[in-house]
Amino acid sequence: MTAPRTPKIPYGGDYNPEQWTEEVWDEDHRLFTEAGIDTLTVGVFTWSLTQPGPDTYDFTVLDRILARAAAEGRRVCLATGTAAVPPWLAKRHPEVNRTDFEGRRHRYGQRHNFCPSSPAYREHATRLADRLAGRYARHPALLAWHINNEYGGACYCDLCAEAFRAWLRRRHGTLDALNDAWWTTFWSHRYTDWDQIEPPNALTEHWRGPDHTAFQGITLDYHRFTTDALLGCFRAEKDAIRRHDPATPVTTNLMGPYRPLDYHRWAPHLDFVSWDNYPPLDAPPTRAALGHDLMRGLKDGAPFWLMEQTPSTTACRDVNPLRRPGDLRLATFQAIAHGADATLYFQLRASRGACEKYHGAVIGHAGRADTRVFREVAALGEELGRLGATTLGARTPARTALVFDWDSWWALETSDGPSRLVRYLDVVHAYYRAAREAGADVDVVPHTADLGHYDVVMAPALYMVKGDLAHRLEAVAARGGTVLATFLSGRVDEHDRAFRTDVPGPLAPLMGVRVDEWDARPEEFTQSVPELETEARLVFEIVRLTGAEAVATYGADFYAGTPAVTRNRPGDGAGEAWYVATALDQRGVDRIVRRVLSRHGLLGPYADHRGVETATRIAADGTPLLFLLNHAPAPTSLPVAFTAADLLTGRRLERGEPLTLDPYGVAVLHAAQ
Amino acid sequence: MTAPRTPKIPYGGDYNPEQWTEEVWDEDHRLFTEAGIDTLTVGVFTWSLTQPGPDTYDFTVLDRILARAAAEGRRVCLATGTAAVPPWLAKRHPEVNRTDFEGRRHRYGQRHNFCPSSPAYREHATRLADRLAGRYARHPALLAWHINNEYGGACYCDLCAEAFRAWLRRRHGTLDALNDAWWTTFWSHRYTDWDQIEPPNALTEHWRGPDHTAFQGITLDYHRFTTDALLGCFRAEKDAIRRHDPATPVTTNLMGPYRPLDYHRWAPHLDFVSWDNYPPLDAPPTRAALGHDLMRGLKDGAPFWLMEQTPSTTACRDVNPLRRPGDLRLATFQAIAHGADATLYFQLRASRGACEKYHGAVIGHAGRADTRVFREVAALGEELGRLGATTLGARTPARTALVFDWDSWWALETSDGPSRLVRYLDVVHAYYRAAREAGADVDVVPHTADLGHYDVVMAPALYMVKGDLAHRLEAVAARGGTVLATFLSGRVDEHDRAFRTDVPGPLAPLMGVRVDEWDARPEEFTQSVPELETEARLVFEIVRLTGAEAVATYGADFYAGTPAVTRNRPGDGAGEAWYVATALDQRGVDRIVRRVLSRHGLLGPYADHRGVETATRIAADGTPLLFLLNHAPAPTSLPVAFTAADLLTGRRLERGEPLTLDPYGVAVLHAAQ
Amino acid sequence: MTAPRTPKIPYGGDYNPEQWTEEVWDEDHRLFTEAGIDTLTVGVFTWSLTQPGPDTYDFTVLDRILARAAAEGRRVCLATGTAAVPPWLAKRHPEVNRTDFEGRRHRYGQRHNFCPSSPAYREHATRLADRLAGRYARHPALLAWHINNEYGGACYCDLCAEAFRAWLRRRHGTLDALNDAWWTTFWSHRYTDWDQIEPPNALTEHWRGPDHTAFQGITLDYHRFTTDALLGCFRAEKDAIRRHDPATPVTTNLMGPYRPLDYHRWAPHLDFVSWDNYPPLDAPPTRAALGHDLMRGLKDGAPFWLMEQTPSTTACRDVNPLRRPGDLRLATFQAIAHGADATLYFQLRASRGACEKYHGAVIGHAGRADTRVFREVAALGEELGRLGATTLGARTPARTALVFDWDSWWALETSDGPSRLVRYLDVVHAYYRAAREAGADVDVVPHTADLGHYDVVMAPALYMVKGDLAHRLEAVAARGGTVLATFLSGRVDEHDRAFRTDVPGPLAPLMGVRVDEWDARPEEFTQSVPELETEARLVFEIVRLTGAEAVATYGADFYAGTPAVTRNRPGDGAGEAWYVATALDQRGVDRIVRRVLSRHGLLGPYADHRGVETATRIAADGTPLLFLLNHAPAPTSLPVAFTAADLLTGRRLERGEPLTLDPYGVAVLHAAQ
Repeated sequence: MTAPRTPKIPYGGDYNPEQWTEEVWDEDHRLFTEAGIDTLTVGVFTWSLTQPGPDTYDFTVLDRILARAAAEGRRVCLATGTAAVPPWLAKRHPEVNRTDFEGRRHRYGQRHNFCPSSPAYREHATRLADRLAGRYARHPALLAWHINNEYGGACYCDLCAEAFRAWLRRRHGTLDALNDAWWTTFWSHRYTDWDQIEPPNALTEHWRGPDHTAFQGITLDYHRFTTDALLGCFRAEKDAIRRHDPATPVTTNLMGPYRPLDYHRWAPHLDFVSWDNYPPLDAPPTRAALGHDLMRGLKDGAPFWLMEQTPSTTACRDVNPLRRPGDLRLATFQAIAHGADATLYFQLRASRGACEKYHGAVIGHAGRADTRVFREVAALGEELGRLGATTLGARTPARTALVFDWDSWWALETSDGPSRLVRYLDVVHAYYRAAREAGADVDVVPHTADLGHYDVVMAPALYMVKGDLAHRLEAVAARGGTVLATFLSGRVDEHDRAFRTDVPGPLAPLMGVRVDEWDARPEEFTQSVPELETEARLVFEIVRLTGAEAVATYGADFYAGTPAVTRNRPGDGAGEAWYVATALDQRGVDRIVRRVLSRHGLLGPYADHRGVETATRIAADGTPLLFLLNHAPAPTSLPVAFTAADLLTGRRLERGEPLTLDPYGVAVLHAAQ
Repeated sequence: MTAPRTPKIPYGGDYNPEQWTEEVWDEDHRLFTEAGIDTLTVGVFTWSLTQPGPDTYDFTVLDRILARAAAEGRRVCLATGTAAVPPWLAKRHPEVNRTDFEGRRHRYGQRHNFCPSSPAYREHATRLADRLAGRYARHPALLAWHINNEYGGACYCDLCAEAFRAWLRRRHGTLDALNDAWWTTFWSHRYTDWDQIEPPNALTEHWRGPDHTAFQGITLDYHRFTTDALLGCFRAEKDAIRRHDPATPVTTNLMGPYRPLDYHRWAPHLDFVSWDNYPPLDAPPTRAALGHDLMRGLKDGAPFWLMEQTPSTTACRDVNPLRRPGDLRLATFQAIAHGADATLYFQLRASRGACEKYHGAVIGHAGRADTRVFREVAALGEELGRLGATTLGARTPARTALVFDWDSWWALETSDGPSRLVRYLDVVHAYYRAAREAGADVDVVPHTADLGHYDVVMAPALYMVKGDLAHRLEAVAARGGTVLATFLSGRVDEHDRAFRTDVPGPLAPLMGVRVDEWDARPEEFTQSVPELETEARLVFEIVRLTGAEAVATYGADFYAGTPAVTRNRPGDGAGEAWYVATALDQRGVDRIVRRVLSRHGLLGPYADHRGVETATRIAADGTPLLFLLNHAPAPTSLPVAFTAADLLTGRRLERGEPLTLDPYGVAVLHAAQ
Repeated sequence: MTAPRTPKIPYGGDYNPEQWTEEVWDEDHRLFTEAGIDTLTVGVFTWSLTQPGPDTYDFTVLDRILARAAAEGRRVCLATGTAAVPPWLAKRHPEVNRTDFEGRRHRYGQRHNFCPSSPAYREHATRLADRLAGRYARHPALLAWHINNEYGGACYCDLCAEAFRAWLRRRHGTLDALNDAWWTTFWSHRYTDWDQIEPPNALTEHWRGPDHTAFQGITLDYHRFTTDALLGCFRAEKDAIRRHDPATPVTTNLMGPYRPLDYHRWAPHLDFVSWDNYPPLDAPPTRAALGHDLMRGLKDGAPFWLMEQTPSTTACRDVNPLRRPGDLRLATFQAIAHGADATLYFQLRASRGACEKYHGAVIGHAGRADTRVFREVAALGEELGRLGATTLGARTPARTALVFDWDSWWALETSDGPSRLVRYLDVVHAYYRAAREAGADVDVVPHTADLGHYDVVMAPALYMVKGDLAHRLEAVAARGGTVLATFLSGRVDEHDRAFRTDVPGPLAPLMGVRVDEWDARPEEFTQSVPELETEARLVFEIVRLTGAEAVATYGADFYAGTPAVTRNRPGDGAGEAWYVATALDQRGVDRIVRRVLSRHGLLGPYADHRGVETATRIAADGTPLLFLLNHAPAPTSLPVAFTAADLLTGRRLERGEPLTLDPYGVAVLHAAQ
């Protein structure tokens, strides 16, 4: 099953009319029409409204909301509303509340407040989903099901402990296998009964927080268990829906590169992927792009929905800057360029109370249409209307892949040594950014992905190497492709046990290097890498060549002159394997990645235009759509790469003709027939 | 009822002879006489001494302490001693111990350790107050009652939960009203039973500490509840005292701008205000002055007592600098200048053990009179003796008011968005400081104050606008006065719900502006405001003029040229309304405030003498007393503004004659008859 | 009883073959032989292996490990393995798990996880020690007993509360005495029943963590109690061993200057001292040396074992740098120079899993002998073999003592005021460093030490002065010696009560100074001390001379010109007493200490050779062994001080001949006969 079929990009967002009287709804729909809004995400936090008590359901308001949407010709993404439990449930079943990392059972409050292992929660949530599906499965406004909301967090209660033990039995089979996997003989941890196993938290294996654990293997399995436990909640609700509605696509809104949940385990269970894009402050545009490409990679390149973004500002951060004029449009087209087939907002109308009242909204507290934000939203709505179905279902023709692995993320960042300062996402992003800024489309894929159609495969900080990945990477090189790995790759097996071979473990033969030792230094320390005219920091692996050649070397210290970057040409020499033994500055990463890409002709036509992002999607009819996105606050001019029509202006552009992009401007070039 | 009547400014402080043998008392009283000390605060932490068990009272030591004081001719401010419970009470009634923000029931320790909702605490504390009043009501040494000590903190136990629910019933009446006030439909929080409501803390609505809450409305009500719960303890003790002693004034020592308690709710219940002045390190002198003026404003301008200040150094801070020579005298006269009718120390003799042993004391561990600190204390005692009754009961003739509002403080600092970096007290202080340094006397008043006699009313960061305040501010302008409001004013109603009108809500008509959006940036980012030759930071509201005119504009960014400061002349134009849309640097605030003050002739004669503070009190006989305080480490010379006598030297000064103030020097000018 | 008698310096370290199959053991022993490793620390974390259930013991693996060691001719330091409890014990007796400072009972995890007051732990641990001793007391491989591992931490459970109360009864006798000692009248803490006393933690007397306490006296006693409680565990195991084995020396591995435990209380119960040396990152070499000298001082100068050091890198730190080439050898000889009679590693083979898998090891994951680290270890093994027994049992002939006092450490760092920024170890280290870099051998001794044979006694930051120490220091001066004390010396008695005399309390007569007040300032503030061409910071005591003369003065502020450093010549003037009233920079400390040392001819011959450390040991036959350690990364040349043989090269060196030390080079000069 795929995303809902729509005649154009669905446009709208989270809508909470239950907070308001119906006179306000009139104003809302008038403004929605004015803004080209056709899609409403409804019901996300309505549990306490639709089920005011254990045996009482009341769908009156929801009925009206959907009826009104239908009457206005709008479609609804209907949420099951199970992300925030109602007060009575928490009071009646205290075990529904989570027990936090500190071991404290919470009482009622906030949201995302349910224990995933609690039978009471599971039963009530599933029953609610069942009721909703029974009632609305055939509703004319229904476009998609939205289960729960931003699943996340973890629970450490006794119910979770029980569920964890059951999960471990399934995973490891025997205690001997578990003891071996977790290497429990270390620090006298040999378990003799499953009941002796406790969730890893501040009262058991952890100190100084979630990343400091005595047993990485236990913590790693708890991350996997938590992923599966929450997924179990999702699946139970989906099953309930499917009993009534076999056809409407079901999703939940993910959060891009969100560390707590391994979305690769979730992907098969989602009919389509949707996610909420709130990039960190001051992040370069590639940070959001990485999120898009990671999400697109979840289901093998299928388009996804942008379920949430803010029209203007966030509220939850210490400092919440305003989107500059044009920035919203740019970010929206960036999402589309990377595979979004819907672009929605949180939120359509600002709440009057509680913690998100200052979160940006299409309609502010005063209900005005003459604000800058509303005008930008409406203009964009008009533009998307004109775009119609052109981009829907289009695929990305990437020849570069980046292997992204939650297990490596968890294991690397909970490792004691060599350095707590290495952040998985930073390393991954540096390589992703280098490729993207050089103009390459990139698929961000799981370690199990078919690598057969890529010229370049990057595996930055692939700390854990599982299954036959090493062989599949060797195959990439064997057929002439290029594989790139870095420091802290190939360190551990699936249980976080060090390989009993030379570093980088199973990647060592391909890379043609051997690492016996590694230096680590504080953030402020830099090591020069003269051949790249750049610097490196954090971790410096000392490399011996066992087949590879040095491409760049360390410039100082007792390992001066030894390799910092190497290239191997395994077998007959057609393919290449690059190893980057240290955390190069972006400039150094750029140089390496551009060398790799250019070998395969993958540098984009605008690789030297700083600030201009390009991305290609192949429309359903096979026509390439080239997105040009100017992230700079100044206009820029580019020669058109092929004769094309700009889908946004309708203007025809001849090959070589200069195309001027406004500040934060966008063009979508469609090859002229 | 007012403060105790005394023939001169009471001078002395906290005295704990129960820690010592009576030989030490002899030394104490000899030194008190030498230092001009006439007032002793006694009994503050004596509960475990006076009541060693549930049914045992032992007033032997207290009897002796008071008898000795009386014999020496000293008066006593007698504490009920209920701020630190005795060990046996905590053991016998564990529920007396507080449950902290993290949800942990404490065991015995520290002080301020009682649950305000615990019947056992209330009963025992009230009984103790009753016993003390019964015993000492007619004691010749008794000057005032000092209930408890520095009330503060909060408790989150089940008893408090119960009491909170009862308080909410009284406040909101129905659950529907409460659900509406708290906007509970957001995040599925609709309560269907009062018992579902939990105190807002780390186990319920909060994350990342006390300022991060999912529901500002709940947290806000808990601040109000806590204020009332502790006030209930105070009132119960006061009632017990009044049963025996109808006449002696009763107080408790407040803490100036102390966020946890809304002292405006306390003020009616205090016979007179007293407070402990420990300004932050490196704060400008206006910071202490703001505390004094806020305290004076609690009871409509009535003089207050300075109950505690350190003679030399604090102990509780990471770094505890020493008061420079002269600084103690200067701070003491600053208190008097702002309305203090008593100046007392913590502490008269240093404790040998526990955490305050290094807190500055009049008498140190070695019991010496020949220390610098003792000599300064004694010289000041002599000076206050000479001053006699002149200043007692004098009032401040301010024509400038600053609206101070605990609700706004709480709501602003728990708000998600636009910026966690805005601190209420910093904004308030900036405007207060500007007015004070320009020579204006300022009344710091509650939002309910009668504004009828002020020329200038400032309402900086008045985030919450309640009742008819907007109309009363409009009336100020209507009669020709000036009103000043700032960014983050007029945002929410009494329940912390955003107004459904343009920002700044009810103040918008008066201000003649409309704000649709606002930018927020990190601390280090500055925005220029060219007309004021200054900079702004943190929050930048984007203002549309709806009647006002721009006084100053933003110098950069996409909102360059739009108004940063505006002035409106509503109605017939006699009055003015100023709106400052961003956090101007002090220099910018100074310029705005001086323009406002000068329009009303409120700039002081020494407005351009940096470092010299002036303050006026009108003595009981109507004579103005002009205090001149030189906060600079260098001498300064001023022309005398009117022919006067300096009360401290007795010297006559002709109008226009130069008056030299020593470094940290003080003069008190009394208009010559 | 002393350390084990061995024919050479034992060399080896922690070895965990139970984690591996026996094929790996073959590889291990082959590599041990190659590296000159003769000593294996075995069994440190084997409890869950040797006792898989309450009534089941299984020594099969341990038998094989010891048999193999014996067969290979290696000796074993056999651990009782009680530092990490097995899972079944934690499950069966939850009270065995610690309750942390936050008052939370832990569940199973990590290590060092046992409550020292738990009878179940005590009984099981002692029984295990008994079984082990019964089985291996006469094993040919047995060289020493290693009880537990790195004792540390604290527990705050109800069992500990009970034990604390019993300990307090023994210490204080009566509640009156306790109330007086703790000064409980302050803050109404008078206890009327022992049961009212609670352990001082976050739920009782503390706020902002372990160093912020309302009652220093309570916290201090809890540190002492914890020291004794853990010592009780050690003693119980030792007693069990002694029942089977009267002769084999028993130790536990200490941790140098480890704040939580007062090792002076432990010293009498250890047959010999051993410790684990992991100096802080970027610490100067004197920091490790201070650890060595402190450990040597525990048993009156007896040699100790270096039980652990890393061959290459730590893992537990945020950043784990690599030992530079030569650094391991240098650190090892530094240990020997300061009194180590064994040098061992953690760890011989790297663990595959859990949190220490990246901790440096002699044998890495790939099991190679051709790594840099293995080669350095092996070369050092060869060198130690050649050294033979020469250094074993040699003593240090220091004429300078430094008084080190855990009570002062605890009391100073939990003090409220004057400054939280003063760290005891930093002050102590500054004086120690100055003496060591000037070439003086230093004994680091307890306050009870016999001071009769020292020329110079330094007591930096000796905050607490107990017993007759002041008189014994006076005696040092009386016989012509020099005593040096500093700011924050002589402040409190053994209960942390301020002395009722002038500061520095009992040291005041000797120092000839009186301190009434003290300033404290933030880290970044500096005060000049012109006579020493240096600066001071943090705390500035204002000194009046009562016999002493000023040596240096403050250069600024209101106390400019008053003494910062003083010298007194009490009595007939033969001896001297120096008082340093502020935290001088190292340069200033160096100047003062060198003046003191030179008066007694204690400046070393290479005092001006920066980077060269010297240390002397007197061999059993009376011959001095002079260690020369070049801590610089460059070679250096020194004139030989006496005709000697270099024990490492065998080369004869004539007096005055230049000796070149390599970068990180070492020489051990043995006076030529």
